[in-house]
Amino acid sequence: MKDCTKPTGEKVEKRKRFLLDENEIPRHWYNIVADMPTKPQPMLHPGTKRPMTVEEMSPIFGEELSRQELNQKDTWIEIPHEVRELYKNYRSTPLVRAYALEKALGTPAHIYFKNESVSPVGSHKINSAIAQAYYAQKEGTTHLTTETGAGQWGAALSYAAKVFGIEAAVYQVKISYEQKPYRRSIMQTFGAQVTPSPSMSTRAGKDILTKTPNHQGSLGTAISEALELAQTTLNCKYSLGSVLNFVTLHQTVIGLEAEKQMQMAGEYPDIVIGCFGGGSNFGGSAYPFMRHTLRKGVKTRFIAAEPASCPKLTRGEFRYDFGDEAGYTPLLPMFTLGHKFVPSNIHAGGLRYHGAGVIISQLLKDQLVEAVDIPQIESFEAGQLFAHTEGIIPAPESNHAIAAAIREAKKCIKTGEKKVILFTLSGHGLIDMSAYDSFLSGDLQDHELSDNEIKKNLTD
Amino acid sequence: MKDCTKPTGEKVEKRKRFLLDENEIPRHWYNIVADMPTKPQPMLHPGTKRPMTVEEMSPIFGEELSRQELNQKDTWIEIPHEVRELYKNYRSTPLVRAYALEKALGTPAHIYFKNESVSPVGSHKINSAIAQAYYAQKEGTTHLTTETGAGQWGAALSYAAKVFGIEAAVYQVKISYEQKPYRRSIMQTFGAQVTPSPSMSTRAGKDILTKTPNHQGSLGTAISEALELAQTTLNCKYSLGSVLNFVTLHQTVIGLEAEKQMQMAGEYPDIVIGCFGGGSNFGGSAYPFMRHTLRKGVKTRFIAAEPASCPKLTRGEFRYDFGDEAGYTPLLPMFTLGHKFVPSNIHAGGLRYHGAGVIISQLLKDQLVEAVDIPQIESFEAGQLFAHTEGIIPAPESNHAIAAAIREAKKCIKTGEKKVILFTLSGHGLIDMSAYDSFLSGDLQDHELSDNEIKKNLTD
Repeated sequence: MKDCTKPTGEKVEKRKRFLLDENEIPRHWYNIVADMPTKPQPMLHPGTKRPMTVEEMSPIFGEELSRQELNQKDTWIEIPHEVRELYKNYRSTPLVRAYALEKALGTPAHIYFKNESVSPVGSHKINSAIAQAYYAQKEGTTHLTTETGAGQWGAALSYAAKVFGIEAAVYQVKISYEQKPYRRSIMQTFGAQVTPSPSMSTRAGKDILTKTPNHQGSLGTAISEALELAQTTLNCKYSLGSVLNFVTLHQTVIGLEAEKQMQMAGEYPDIVIGCFGGGSNFGGSAYPFMRHTLRKGVKTRFIAAEPASCPKLTRGEFRYDFGDEAGYTPLLPMFTLGHKFVPSNIHAGGLRYHGAGVIISQLLKDQLVEAVDIPQIESFEAGQLFAHTEGIIPAPESNHAIAAAIREAKKCIKTGEKKVILFTLSGHGLIDMSAYDSFLSGDLQDHELSDNEIKKNLTD
Repeated sequence: MKDCTKPTGEKVEKRKRFLLDENEIPRHWYNIVADMPTKPQPMLHPGTKRPMTVEEMSPIFGEELSRQELNQKDTWIEIPHEVRELYKNYRSTPLVRAYALEKALGTPAHIYFKNESVSPVGSHKINSAIAQAYYAQKEGTTHLTTETGAGQWGAALSYAAKVFGIEAAVYQVKISYEQKPYRRSIMQTFGAQVTPSPSMSTRAGKDILTKTPNHQGSLGTAISEALELAQTTLNCKYSLGSVLNFVTLHQTVIGLEAEKQMQMAGEYPDIVIGCFGGGSNFGGSAYPFMRHTLRKGVKTRFIAAEPASCPKLTRGEFRYDFGDEAGYTPLLPMFTLGHKFVPSNIHAGGLRYHGAGVIISQLLKDQLVEAVDIPQIESFEAGQLFAHTEGIIPAPESNHAIAAAIREAKKCIKTGEKKVILFTLSGHGLIDMSAYDSFLSGDLQDHELSDNEIKKNLTD
């Protein structure tokens, strides 16, 4: 009887997906700060204006995460056994050669994507959520608060908190809370409490609503509220889904896996692309490759793709600014549009943040990374083409990375170069379908900012 | 400098996920009919009452699928190269040992699940959609029509049709169209035309609406409409997401992979479980294992988990019946609740079908499979526990398989047996969150049927 495993071998098969054995999942995160030629400037205490210490940060984030935040020495930070065990539920994520997208574009470029959308909650956010909840539980924390934009981070933290027996309270940006009700339901299914921000449950929220009764929220307002709740609740710490160094550190599991998988594919990227909100997905994807640039001078371009309506990297200013609307956070040396900046209601809620992380800001200053800003409609056109070719409907955030990759792939058509382009598909868009509805019906708009609008928030 | 790949080897690690190399993805589907001791009774032409022939079926389904439908001879059917290339976009899907679920239950059983939710459209339906669209294109078909309940099948076929350059028209059961607007958007993003059924676009739809103006639709009404559109449109064929033999055949890629993956895990299932709507997910998961039962007498239990509100296997009658509401289809020898049966509006829209496939009906008669019916609330309790432990929010359909697996795992607590339980997670529930909202708020209801209600549709 014929066996189903017998190869037929009629046609040559091209390898499409690359996966690692479970024992090849990284055992350490990569801390790029240790390798940076120019270290980032310090975060400053908003009162004393002196560099923040681990002791000052610990009451908010816990000890280990605070140590990770300020660690400029250790290149590799060991991933705790318990965290790695949970990573094994969904990692390694596939590295995929996007043959169909290449064909549709008619490009000689080789396009690869690292598919983080296959995680249980549908995005990369889970990589740091598991780590943060693990350290919290280890240090005796019983409650965590956090902010969420599109809801991807909130969903991930709600899951991780449940796993470690921690209560989670999530402030979700109000416009996302309304646009994406399913994300609220996901958080609630994992047992979290969800409040739209700005809300009347905090002083910061009340102040914002008093001034602007119909404020639609931003990551800045939600961070203020979550921080305030953490500081006024017993045995409670605050979690953050991006921007900070330790979040990006945890996300390096993406790039470290991708590096091994690119080896399996027999290639090395000429260009690494990630969408950009606060920097953790971009940094997590790019920094492991950048270490070869820093150490051995390997020439690779690193492109952060941000929305044209929230262009802190391309049009913001490098300076000390708060990470939140109310000014509760330390002062961060970063590219910013001003901490009172309220981005347009684009569908990529995860990218609606006024500032960039400290590491990426320094790397941008040092011209080690490039930034591009993508108009909303271009991003959805890219996402639709990706869906039609690769079959996956991408998150609106990820569409920015795809659009940037397509721009580069199109350049290769003109030059004839077979560049190797790698981007991270940070999440799927199955819970963001109202955004696609709006795109398909022609209602979607671009929200370009005038120079005056940008100046306004930076001089306020 | 310390390398990130260096094993730390401090704790023993248990292997959780099992994946196959790309060249190990099955090259043939398994046709259980060839191995069945009692062949299924033939489908009958509704006019002549004589067994359907390939020639009679081809105008509706195309030639190759019609041949597959009636093939009782060949045990293995080769998977076309082009189909296998598209399988490689997401296959193999992971086989996962559910350690956390086992722990939460306190069971000595070993629970494995085959995770089809990681496919691009979030469910197993894509396995047959790709095959059906491939054969359609190969035979020159330019248009495909189909029905969809929860929308998983419709999404999968819309994607597959787009890949092969075919226009797709989908009739979505009206109640699902309203409950799950995101699934409509997904189909539209892939370029399909979507109509809620019953509609005024077909004679069948008009007849149903004339009789019952507020008819909420069922798979039976949607099939009637899709069939009618196919028969009245030039160069158009009809696709089906379950019930038929060829659909189940394509889904055997699930079980064939799982078989190899269980070998990697060093175990063989004592029990194989799938949720049950028309039978393709269940059969696709179970039949490859059942071949060892049929050929070598290996003792394995096969459990089909259906909703208590639509209990054709546990409380239906075995007899010839139509596959659709209007009576357009051939007469099928099957367990049925009557083709006019309209199931309650449970959230597991994919299981709201009055009949069971021909193969499973025969196997149930021959006591080679068992069936259980699961009340809606129990199914969601199971799904929530699964989300809390394994991190994946399951589709309402899949919750039935999980509930059945939990029942068996709980029996092992009493007996102390380390039974090996395998179930298929047919899809994720991220687009079904309104169902979870209803569950969390306590609004969810069970819809048990009285004997009289069941008799009514069988004697009409």
